[in-house]
Amino acid sequence: MIDQEQLRDCYVTTRSKIVMLVVDGLGGLAHPDTGLSELETARLPNLDAMAQESACGLTTPVLPGVAPGSGPGHLALFGYDPLKHMIGRGALEALGIDTPLIPGDVAARGNFCLVDGDGLLVDRRAGRIPTEFSTPLCQRLDRIEIPGVELDVYPVQDYRFVLRLRGEGLSERITETDPQITSVAPLPVEALGPQAERTASIVNDFLAQARLLLAEEERANMVMLRGFAQLPNLPPMGDVYRLNPAGIAAYPMYRGLATVSGMRVIPTGKTFADEVETLQQNFESHDFFFIHYKPADAAGEDGDFDAKVQRLEELDPLIPQIRELDPDVLLVAGDHATPAIMASHSWHPVPFMLHSKLTKGEGVKTFDERACAQGSIGSIQATQVMLMAMSHAGKLTKFGP
Amino acid sequence: MIDQEQLRDCYVTTRSKIVMLVVDGLGGLAHPDTGLSELETARLPNLDAMAQESACGLTTPVLPGVAPGSGPGHLALFGYDPLKHMIGRGALEALGIDTPLIPGDVAARGNFCLVDGDGLLVDRRAGRIPTEFSTPLCQRLDRIEIPGVELDVYPVQDYRFVLRLRGEGLSERITETDPQITSVAPLPVEALGPQAERTASIVNDFLAQARLLLAEEERANMVMLRGFAQLPNLPPMGDVYRLNPAGIAAYPMYRGLATVSGMRVIPTGKTFADEVETLQQNFESHDFFFIHYKPADAAGEDGDFDAKVQRLEELDPLIPQIRELDPDVLLVAGDHATPAIMASHSWHPVPFMLHSKLTKGEGVKTFDERACAQGSIGSIQATQVMLMAMSHAGKLTKFGP
Repeated sequence: MIDQEQLRDCYVTTRSKIVMLVVDGLGGLAHPDTGLSELETARLPNLDAMAQESACGLTTPVLPGVAPGSGPGHLALFGYDPLKHMIGRGALEALGIDTPLIPGDVAARGNFCLVDGDGLLVDRRAGRIPTEFSTPLCQRLDRIEIPGVELDVYPVQDYRFVLRLRGEGLSERITETDPQITSVAPLPVEALGPQAERTASIVNDFLAQARLLLAEEERANMVMLRGFAQLPNLPPMGDVYRLNPAGIAAYPMYRGLATVSGMRVIPTGKTFADEVETLQQNFESHDFFFIHYKPADAAGEDGDFDAKVQRLEELDPLIPQIRELDPDVLLVAGDHATPAIMASHSWHPVPFMLHSKLTKGEGVKTFDERACAQGSIGSIQATQVMLMAMSHAGKLTKFGP
Repeated sequence: MIDQEQLRDCYVTTRSKIVMLVVDGLGGLAHPDTGLSELETARLPNLDAMAQESACGLTTPVLPGVAPGSGPGHLALFGYDPLKHMIGRGALEALGIDTPLIPGDVAARGNFCLVDGDGLLVDRRAGRIPTEFSTPLCQRLDRIEIPGVELDVYPVQDYRFVLRLRGEGLSERITETDPQITSVAPLPVEALGPQAERTASIVNDFLAQARLLLAEEERANMVMLRGFAQLPNLPPMGDVYRLNPAGIAAYPMYRGLATVSGMRVIPTGKTFADEVETLQQNFESHDFFFIHYKPADAAGEDGDFDAKVQRLEELDPLIPQIRELDPDVLLVAGDHATPAIMASHSWHPVPFMLHSKLTKGEGVKTFDERACAQGSIGSIQATQVMLMAMSHAGKLTKFGP
């Protein structure tokens, strides 16, 4: 991670408070008709006013040209090098449905599928069976028992579920069972090293039992597993930065990312207004808060430019409620851009602003891609945002004599 | 190299096409009389028009303050970390005269020189004998035979030649023979490790035979060798990026650099117009093209500001012919700056622009150092240019879940 071992002694615990607001998919690109991005189009009086009193810049989530998933995008903002600390798909999927994961657990993404009498794949997604149909099947699979390991199956949505293995000496280093094509049999799991042989054998045993349990089903008579993953072994943020960090997120995946980073996750409601209320109620109990705003990303992923503009305009009126708490450092960042015209995450640098008593504005009048590019922070790696937050909060002291 | 192992799975092969135009020595510095650089002085309507529809920025070839040679300058643009992947002088010299090199070959730069009756150096460059005089001497040296190795001597220019050794178990880890001063004898070659002892012995044998063969010559009766080098072992661009890359260059050294990087080199003529025609004729056969424009660098190295301006103005009218091919990504970059006022390569950041359907312009009106510094890409490492090209072409998918 970016916090080089050499900086460890520079972090100090103080009474100052940092609030990191992560606007998911914050950055965008110009609409072809207007030449203006989502942020440039939206009416954001409160964010703009804050920009006029902040230090502004752009963050690169991973590397120029590299569009990150939610995992790397957030880990970078928390100060972890996303190229060194990967969160595998199974673990992220488990975190996304609030499945408790502890170090050592192996999680996998599961699909129900349909095979013919010879065991050859007919439909890799079992006709996308609905959740109400797959949930009882998950409950049936959840009863599978294999000595020496705890197996749990959690429904996700439609034909998707999570398998969690808990026990001693498990390994994520096993192959996937989805052959990616039909008319062949699902693959057996294979160990990618001697330390994974027992895990591979357990999973193959699970698959054999699953097949028996589902044999009579007409729509979904088999399962496939992929993305076997354990939690990355991250040094907790609290230890690294000498903070008492908390995470507030309405969506489970982001709670999971907070947990993985060593934050205490504070229960909250379903909306960002709920999150702000949770922040207000717990403001005295922590010195660092990660608070997550999801809807901008969802609209961007849908390719709906107007909806993304609206989601940003819905965020704006809640900014004063956060500022009223008077945190020593309030920063607004994004885990990545999600330009509506691309309908996907992108690699573009993401606007970023940091407000503290040391920032008095620098001529940046609006909070958007073009204006922030002119800010005093310039273009930095997302992994460096925590350094900026810590120093502006007086928690990162002089390096070296 | 920059393509972290972790990104390998993110590269996908698609039908989209990337054209990378490398303008050798592209960047410059202000003329003291006008305060304008070569690019700012030149009339470049087509490059300027392209900048108005591109994402613009600056590239740092190696590190701030580090002026690269042609080898590192190009390798960086192809995505190889130039500090990790060195091309030794002998290998680059060989590539520069179209000498075929295969992995394992050892190439060295050779000089004819003049020694006195005691074998002490009188003239380290043999009075800079002309090529027509040195070529027959090279042919004579080329007949030297040593068991277990294939020896070839290729004339370069004036007093310079290339010695190529081909065979099993050769090593580049041997010392040079040029003592850098006169009135002493050329040095024998020494092995820098046990694995190089046989190569050192072969080269010393060659030097002894060369001395006998040249003994009667009055102007050039001995040779010196330096820059022993093997090809670097680069992962081929095609494998790394899942591309089918081609290189088009009128000058042999750049064809050599393309070969070293794993591109197919397409034969072309002597001018950039020939190169563009070659690009047109082969456009369907590859998904990545490196095309090289040399004259700007040559004028800069000559310290001729006006000539460099003119060479840039001669490039400009050919830009529309490349754009007519409608590549998905067209990027214009430089391997380094060659400011005419310095008459040498320099370390200055180099203008860079990338045109794709995702770039709609960003207020940059001209293609030059000052304007590109205001572009949305900001200042990036040259090694990151390929990441930008790949992502804009839809060939670099999301990193991490």
